[in-house]
Amino acid sequence: MVKSYSISLKTKGNADAIDITDDVSELIKACGLRSGIATLFSPSSTSALTTIEFEPGCLNDFRRLFDEIIDPNRPYEHNKHWDDGNGHSHIRASLEKPFLTIPFIDQTLTLGTWQQVIFIDFDIRPRQRQVILQIIGE
Amino acid sequence: MVKSYSISLKTKGNADAIDITDDVSELIKACGLRSGIATLFSPSSTSALTTIEFEPGCLNDFRRLFDEIIDPNRPYEHNKHWDDGNGHSHIRASLEKPFLTIPFIDQTLTLGTWQQVIFIDFDIRPRQRQVILQIIGE
Amino acid sequence: MVKSYSISLKTKGNADAIDITDDVSELIKACGLRSGIATLFSPSSTSALTTIEFEPGCLNDFRRLFDEIIDPNRPYEHNKHWDDGNGHSHIRASLEKPFLTIPFIDQTLTLGTWQQVIFIDFDIRPRQRQVILQIIGE
Repeated sequence: MVKSYSISLKTKGNADAIDITDDVSELIKACGLRSGIATLFSPSSTSALTTIEFEPGCLNDFRRLFDEIIDPNRPYEHNKHWDDGNGHSHIRASLEKPFLTIPFIDQTLTLGTWQQVIFIDFDIRPRQRQVILQIIGE
Repeated sequence: MVKSYSISLKTKGNADAIDITDDVSELIKACGLRSGIATLFSPSSTSALTTIEFEPGCLNDFRRLFDEIIDPNRPYEHNKHWDDGNGHSHIRASLEKPFLTIPFIDQTLTLGTWQQVIFIDFDIRPRQRQVILQIIGE
Repeated sequence: MVKSYSISLKTKGNADAIDITDDVSELIKACGLRSGIATLFSPSSTSALTTIEFEPGCLNDFRRLFDEIIDPNRPYEHNKHWDDGNGHSHIRASLEKPFLTIPFIDQTLTLGTWQQVIFIDFDIRPRQRQVILQIIGE
């Protein structure tokens, strides 16, 4: 059995991280399946999905990593071609990847207590985003 | 058809990597499904799953990467809030991600010859861990 | 319902990136399933899968990231043991990971307009590769 959903998000860009744990949990409870896997996918080349303890310190530490290893304040070849200034956003997204799969059992995601699901928008401006949630189970 | 299992692990922390290939392979053979996908998920915000050639050189080289790009010996905002000293563990886990999906065909994981499945514990102390294995197939 | 395929690739090595979007899309259209998830897996410890805007600038920027954080021109312990010179290839693959799961709906991958699927070969010589495509759906 396959159930398809879409989660709408408004982001601020620049590594804005949004906690979508409750959105996913509610769709898992509503979808009518008891156990299986939930795959989240962002149809975008400048955003990503992962898990993190959603508190301001961790989020800032995570952003610092990307500022250091994929620094926005240096030249990117992508920007020479397109002049849209988001070359670093693409590379961050390709490293972090735009998908996440989480098992669920008895209609409950198997997340840890301090583990939340985040969508992170690496683009350089506010965006309206759609995340796909594909649920497979029984 | 969905089959749910849990793999128990004792880790040493500090990027201790445990080869769980045999555990997963045995559950795939025992689960009664012929082909499908196996999703491993760590319900934790300080650990991750990936594949590697499981030999001491590769493991040390992999740990060096994390020591360099997410250095434990510098300040993390997470540590200011919680004072638990594992700010770098969280960031490493969010970069590497806590899940892995591997296809299986004829009850056999489609791993390469030199490719093993590892659980890597980035936390700073020994931990008892549970990895979820959700198998979907026919 | 599970459908298993294999995609054959000839690569140049050294972070050669191959756009396999069309291969995957065609197999999704041909497999007979309407909706579900497509899991790509590389049975190798020196290659990976991700998504990127497939244009030369992004690809060069992505390669520069790996050249910087996992520099081929420095010692790796793996090379001391095996003397095959691809220690950095293993670490790049373990960081980037050898799999990707993409939902499909109405026989169409849910990719963004500027988002292509790439296989990236981090090994240091041309290789013949097989990527597994496992499709699960209804």
